[in-house]
Amino acid sequence: MKVFNTSFTVTTEEPTEVSDITKIVRDAIQQFPVTNGIALVNTLHTTCALFMNEYQSALIGDLKSLIERLVPERGGYRHDDPRYSDCERGNAHSHLRAALLGRNIAVGVNNGELMLGRFQSIIFAELDGPRKREITVQVLGE
Amino acid sequence: MKVFNTSFTVTTEEPTEVSDITKIVRDAIQQFPVTNGIALVNTLHTTCALFMNEYQSALIGDLKSLIERLVPERGGYRHDDPRYSDCERGNAHSHLRAALLGRNIAVGVNNGELMLGRFQSIIFAELDGPRKREITVQVLGE
Amino acid sequence: MKVFNTSFTVTTEEPTEVSDITKIVRDAIQQFPVTNGIALVNTLHTTCALFMNEYQSALIGDLKSLIERLVPERGGYRHDDPRYSDCERGNAHSHLRAALLGRNIAVGVNNGELMLGRFQSIIFAELDGPRKREITVQVLGE
Repeated sequence: MKVFNTSFTVTTEEPTEVSDITKIVRDAIQQFPVTNGIALVNTLHTTCALFMNEYQSALIGDLKSLIERLVPERGGYRHDDPRYSDCERGNAHSHLRAALLGRNIAVGVNNGELMLGRFQSIIFAELDGPRKREITVQVLGE
Repeated sequence: MKVFNTSFTVTTEEPTEVSDITKIVRDAIQQFPVTNGIALVNTLHTTCALFMNEYQSALIGDLKSLIERLVPERGGYRHDDPRYSDCERGNAHSHLRAALLGRNIAVGVNNGELMLGRFQSIIFAELDGPRKREITVQVLGE
Repeated sequence: MKVFNTSFTVTTEEPTEVSDITKIVRDAIQQFPVTNGIALVNTLHTTCALFMNEYQSALIGDLKSLIERLVPERGGYRHDDPRYSDCERGNAHSHLRAALLGRNIAVGVNNGELMLGRFQSIIFAELDGPRKREITVQVLGE
């Protein structure tokens, strides 16, 4: 069994921006000689998220509404208050939304293909854009 | 180190149905000659969830109440509105609940046994039943 | 490729207590002869959480406020009601908060170092303290 590492960058243009990165991850994995194993996808950031779901534009709108309802952008957060924090970005909501959505994907690789169901996409959510985000992909397998 | 793959099906009968699948996963793993390693459990679907918690019936009732409170079944979702979506199932709440609960379990295998604490169960939550659901199990180890 | 296992204990003093365990995990990993691979960090409990985020005291205060708002300590839970449950601890809120925050970290190891971004910390959240908590670390790699 071997380990392979790669990474890629996602450039975002909106404060909150959700995109389907399945194809990028699939292409990244297929460059490695792994038939069976697992793939881990991680971000190196704390204000964006990675998760698996159906990628459908109306549903993505619902997801944005949900996180705005559960974690409003203006929520009187201490992290955004100069009396308690030296953070100048005012992005507590981004951190808290990331904590709810998660930032880690572990998915199987079988016969050289990601083991995804018909409606499953690997979804990246920018929660504090615009930014450049680094996403790492590791494959363990044989 | 080797990789082993298997899968099983859970058939659900209710719209929301939570079950303890620890024993199924344990039995699936013990057929493989792995003493030390990790096990990954995934669903191939986007409207059900996998997570770890105590499986106790009163607590499962509380969990169902929580997800209904945070993500109501009827929430005026775009995914359920024919003006914005061709989804005929009206299951935005199922997708959004799955996004909050997660769908991935990674757990250690030591001396051929799942490394679980006394109260930890691997829990499957159907969020858009009744359905047949496929759950994959992978074991990496030696 | 090899698998290595270790564990450590976190002793908490408050009902809700959030701490940065990155250094403990890093030290645990560096005792193993692994250059490239993955590390899995798990708790063996159902009322505490593990996740990745920035560790900043004002933000941790915001996180505590968020979970109290989404899952109030006194929420009329069945798990805490002797008519439905024999649990004497009254800790339904702890279980439900753990379900939202997650309890599993998978992170890469590259050149013998955890692959963490500049602001990423591995964060442990006690949600039902004071307690002693066991946290396991596994490293798969070569």
